[in-house]
Amino acid sequence: MDIAVMLYDGITALDTIGPYEVFAATMKSNVKFVAKKKGLIKLDSKMGCLHADYSFSEVTSADILVVPGCSPPNYKTPMNDEETLNWIRQLHETTKWTTSVCTGSLILSAAGLLNGAKATTHWSSFDLLHSLGAIPTDDRVVRHGKIITAAGVSSGIDMALQLVAWELGEDKSKGVQLILEYDPKPPFDTGSTKKAPAPLVEQISGMLQELSKQEPDL
Amino acid sequence: MDIAVMLYDGITALDTIGPYEVFAATMKSNVKFVAKKKGLIKLDSKMGCLHADYSFSEVTSADILVVPGCSPPNYKTPMNDEETLNWIRQLHETTKWTTSVCTGSLILSAAGLLNGAKATTHWSSFDLLHSLGAIPTDDRVVRHGKIITAAGVSSGIDMALQLVAWELGEDKSKGVQLILEYDPKPPFDTGSTKKAPAPLVEQISGMLQELSKQEPDL
Repeated sequence: MDIAVMLYDGITALDTIGPYEVFAATMKSNVKFVAKKKGLIKLDSKMGCLHADYSFSEVTSADILVVPGCSPPNYKTPMNDEETLNWIRQLHETTKWTTSVCTGSLILSAAGLLNGAKATTHWSSFDLLHSLGAIPTDDRVVRHGKIITAAGVSSGIDMALQLVAWELGEDKSKGVQLILEYDPKPPFDTGSTKKAPAPLVEQISGMLQELSKQEPDL
Repeated sequence: MDIAVMLYDGITALDTIGPYEVFAATMKSNVKFVAKKKGLIKLDSKMGCLHADYSFSEVTSADILVVPGCSPPNYKTPMNDEETLNWIRQLHETTKWTTSVCTGSLILSAAGLLNGAKATTHWSSFDLLHSLGAIPTDDRVVRHGKIITAAGVSSGIDMALQLVAWELGEDKSKGVQLILEYDPKPPFDTGSTKKAPAPLVEQISGMLQELSKQEPDL
C-alpha cells in the first residue's frame, strides 16, 4: 500500500504518528510524509518537529491519503492555501481511501470533499465541520464512500487498524494490534464528552473555542 | 515540568510521540527531544524521521526522562554506547521520574538502572529484560521507586497519563485524555498476548526473535 501522510506547520504529532505506526507495522506499506516543501515541520505545541521527506510535487498519487489535524487555529493555514487544497483534490482522484484524523476533516471540507457527507472531527469542532457543509457524525471512525474521517487525535490508531483489516485482512490488523501492544488501560475513563465530567467538557470546550478565534502564528 | 525525550536512530515513533503528546497537552510541560547529536533521527521503519532539537550536552537535567523503545535489533546500538548510557545515568540523578516505553527498558537496564527492579517491556522481550537483571512484570505500567517502565509501543500514552495524574493532579490527566479524545475503540481485541489467538502470538514472537538476532543497520 502506498500511503501519503500530509504534513503542515502547526500539525498535531499523534494525529500523524498514530496511523503511520499502524501502517508501518504491517510491513506491507510504503508511507511517505509529504508537505508543500520538504524539511522540518513545526508541531502545534511549538516543542519539536516532524519531517517531510517529500514535497507535494514529488507525490502525485497514493492508495491512502491521510490528512492529520491540529490544535485550533492552525488548520486555518492549510484550509486557505490553494496549493494544499489542490494537492488534496489531486491525490483524492487517485486514492482507494482518503482519510483524516481530528480536525483534518476541516481541511478535507475546505478542499470540497465533504459536501453533504457524513464525517467526524475532534468533538469540539462539530459546529465548524457542519458550517463547512458536512454532516457531523458522532462515531470514532466514520465512512462515507471512500472517505474515512476519524475523531480526535488518538482515534487515528483505530482508523488505521480498520483500514488495515479492510485492505490486508483481519489477521494482519490483529497482528499489528499485538505488535503495538495496543491494549489501552488509561488511568481514567474520560476520553469522550459522554464519559468526562460536564464541567471539564465545558472548560476545555471554552478554551478550544477561544483558540479557534485566533490567527495561526506557525 | 521539564521533560527530556531521548532519541536515537532506529527508534519507534509512537513510543516517542505517545508520551510527548500527553505531556504537550497539559500545556504545563517543556518537552525536549534530545539525542547524541542534534538533527534528523531515522525511524525503525526506514520510512521517515523524527528530529532532535537538542544534543546530550545541552540537556543535563530533567524532571522526567523518557527513553522510548524500538524494533529489534535497533536497541543494541544505544545499549552499547557509553556516551548514551552515561547521559541516561546523569539525567537519572536529576529526575523525579525516569521512564521507558517498550524496549526502552532494555536500554535503562544496560545503563544499570534496573538491577533487581520490577520492570516491563514489549511482551516479546521479557526473557531479554530478565537476562539483563530486571524482574519482568506483566503490567502495562510498572513502578519501581522513581522508575516507571511501560509495555509495548502504545502503552506510553497510558504511562504519561498516569504521570500527569501524579504530578499535576487527576483533573489535569482527565482533561488531557479528553483533549486527545483517548477513548480507544480498536476493531479487534488482540492487543495483548492473553487476548490474541495463540498462533498469532507464536508467529509474531518468532518474527521478532529472528530480528533480535540481527545486527542494527541504522
